[in-house]
Amino acid sequence: MAQPLVLLERTGAIAVLVLNHPEKRNALSRAVLTALADRLREIAADPSIKCVIVRAVGPVFSSGHDLNEVRGAAVDELESLFVLCSEVMETIRRLRVPVIAEVAGVATAAGCQLAATCDLVIAAEEATFATPGVKIGLFCSTPAVAVSRAVPAKKAMEMLLTGEAISAAEAERVGLVNRVVPREQLSAATLALAEKVASASGATVALGKRAFYEQLGVDRPRAYEIASRAMVENAQLPDADEGIGAFLEKRSAKWST
Amino acid sequence: MAQPLVLLERTGAIAVLVLNHPEKRNALSRAVLTALADRLREIAADPSIKCVIVRAVGPVFSSGHDLNEVRGAAVDELESLFVLCSEVMETIRRLRVPVIAEVAGVATAAGCQLAATCDLVIAAEEATFATPGVKIGLFCSTPAVAVSRAVPAKKAMEMLLTGEAISAAEAERVGLVNRVVPREQLSAATLALAEKVASASGATVALGKRAFYEQLGVDRPRAYEIASRAMVENAQLPDADEGIGAFLEKRSAKWST
Amino acid sequence: MAQPLVLLERTGAIAVLVLNHPEKRNALSRAVLTALADRLREIAADPSIKCVIVRAVGPVFSSGHDLNEVRGAAVDELESLFVLCSEVMETIRRLRVPVIAEVAGVATAAGCQLAATCDLVIAAEEATFATPGVKIGLFCSTPAVAVSRAVPAKKAMEMLLTGEAISAAEAERVGLVNRVVPREQLSAATLALAEKVASASGATVALGKRAFYEQLGVDRPRAYEIASRAMVENAQLPDADEGIGAFLEKRSAKWST
Repeated sequence: MAQPLVLLERTGAIAVLVLNHPEKRNALSRAVLTALADRLREIAADPSIKCVIVRAVGPVFSSGHDLNEVRGAAVDELESLFVLCSEVMETIRRLRVPVIAEVAGVATAAGCQLAATCDLVIAAEEATFATPGVKIGLFCSTPAVAVSRAVPAKKAMEMLLTGEAISAAEAERVGLVNRVVPREQLSAATLALAEKVASASGATVALGKRAFYEQLGVDRPRAYEIASRAMVENAQLPDADEGIGAFLEKRSAKWST
Repeated sequence: MAQPLVLLERTGAIAVLVLNHPEKRNALSRAVLTALADRLREIAADPSIKCVIVRAVGPVFSSGHDLNEVRGAAVDELESLFVLCSEVMETIRRLRVPVIAEVAGVATAAGCQLAATCDLVIAAEEATFATPGVKIGLFCSTPAVAVSRAVPAKKAMEMLLTGEAISAAEAERVGLVNRVVPREQLSAATLALAEKVASASGATVALGKRAFYEQLGVDRPRAYEIASRAMVENAQLPDADEGIGAFLEKRSAKWST
Repeated sequence: MAQPLVLLERTGAIAVLVLNHPEKRNALSRAVLTALADRLREIAADPSIKCVIVRAVGPVFSSGHDLNEVRGAAVDELESLFVLCSEVMETIRRLRVPVIAEVAGVATAAGCQLAATCDLVIAAEEATFATPGVKIGLFCSTPAVAVSRAVPAKKAMEMLLTGEAISAAEAERVGLVNRVVPREQLSAATLALAEKVASASGATVALGKRAFYEQLGVDRPRAYEIASRAMVENAQLPDADEGIGAFLEKRSAKWST
């Protein structure tokens, strides 16, 4: 039997999604996207998971869509493909737990979109990020949604219009990447960050992640309404009571979630 | 009689709001927020004030909410507390005159929100900024509104999910701080910036500040409608006539406001 | 006969708009704005043009509005002037082909807005950017629309409230400029970038530029709807078929547009 296209591994409370199709440069084919959607559903249903890492086997994080599935496809096939891809991205954003991209190598097109969609990104020094669709006549319009919400508009336009890759260091400078580390420290750095995230109250993080993206897309007065309601809801959680109590009493908190 | 929790000092046309509760790390308790709201009302009513500085007594700019007021509070108490806090923040944004935060030390949670809410921020090299609520089970959702409108989304998420502080230098790099100076030059640098702001026409600055935040939250075509109307209104002010005339005649302008 | 205020030159598929009124510091007078609008209309009507460069004769890229047209003007004159200016800016954004600003020197007020409005900006090391209207009683509210969509909010506020210029290096750091080069390499660098942009499929770039700005101003789920529709439309273009085919067959693509 063939290896699964996407592996789901566990390290304590941390789930690791592994793109496992290096011979196809981890292209986000329909099969891979479907597998990702399935694995994300499993993660969403498992309350013991508190953080997710997305990494890839091989030197390419992901090369984006499988072009053989795009070329000559019928309109309804194209529509279902891009809707499926956007749904996977939105599922990551809506997931209860934070998702960290661990990018060792090349992340291009929808592969760059996948990294940009994750809540946090750690990259190796050799990693590169690109939206090169313009070079093959297929502008990276859906990747642009994620990339242009992470980096300044003119940098996004430059990536999209030239198709040229930016280095991990530049990706960090412009906001696409949170931290760059040497390749040999990448997994340890990502795991340490995931463990820090996982050490918090799961209910608190879930509520906070949801409120963050809700308030980000609206005007400021409306954002304060959303966020104030989230604070009131959060303050009533048993974990807030425990966490504030532990802080005031100078002891470690014991989360119920 | 006890010292007031928030002092209002004057230096010429510049008002200085001083958080004056160092023994409580300048927590934004209900009493402090109410005092801030009162002082902001006084400032709004005084046409001789042309710029505001917010600073704090002691090594902590502000530590955020008073957790004793949050823990075990009834829902209506929580609601009124977070609404009060958001109203103070929105009052700063709506204030006719620019507000500069002068951050000498630690600004965390709603204290970080207060700094991020000010129009401009000058920080000492030792200053730090954090949204650490996640560590005590109470995600910094309302601070996120201000912080995520100042820094790139992934940096905001990193601050919120890890709770870790960023340095003044990093805060400047990511857009949260306008300038970092040595501690001993902080008050002088802030005052110099405030005096520069105060040297402009008050009516012009008031109109410009309002239009800036109005246009920022809407789509670009609508933003141009708002801004074009502001330009027409501004160009009809006596101070615009005086300012343009002075420029064309190579003399100093004398503002009426 | 006088020299035209705005020249339209051609280099292959690249159109160069030249602000040609150095004795007036290339002010965006009503006459210059009208000439720009006319030239942009010509460009829009010429399918052989694939990229536009905007540069200026003399040391000043553009000093913004002609203050003699603002001072003492009637309300309807002011309204038509600012509407005309916003329309020129919006025309650049809506133009089918990318527009690159080549900024050799000073870009202030509406001149800074013009640079910020272009899709990409290349600047010489000596270039400076400012929104100094506050100094003459006329806040740069319309320039703020373009500048605040390119740089972080606090940096925009600092430029607007102080009126001070930022260097090309700082403009690059904050996202207003894509690249800074020595003055003697400026035109070559801009031309090289324009040629890269022009080497892509025109239909693909047109579709991608439009989708980019459409999705930028809306919330993320709606942005994905817009972008997914753009991908489906793009994938059906003959140039996408050709480009993907060429890529899969490891040959150079031959665009039909």
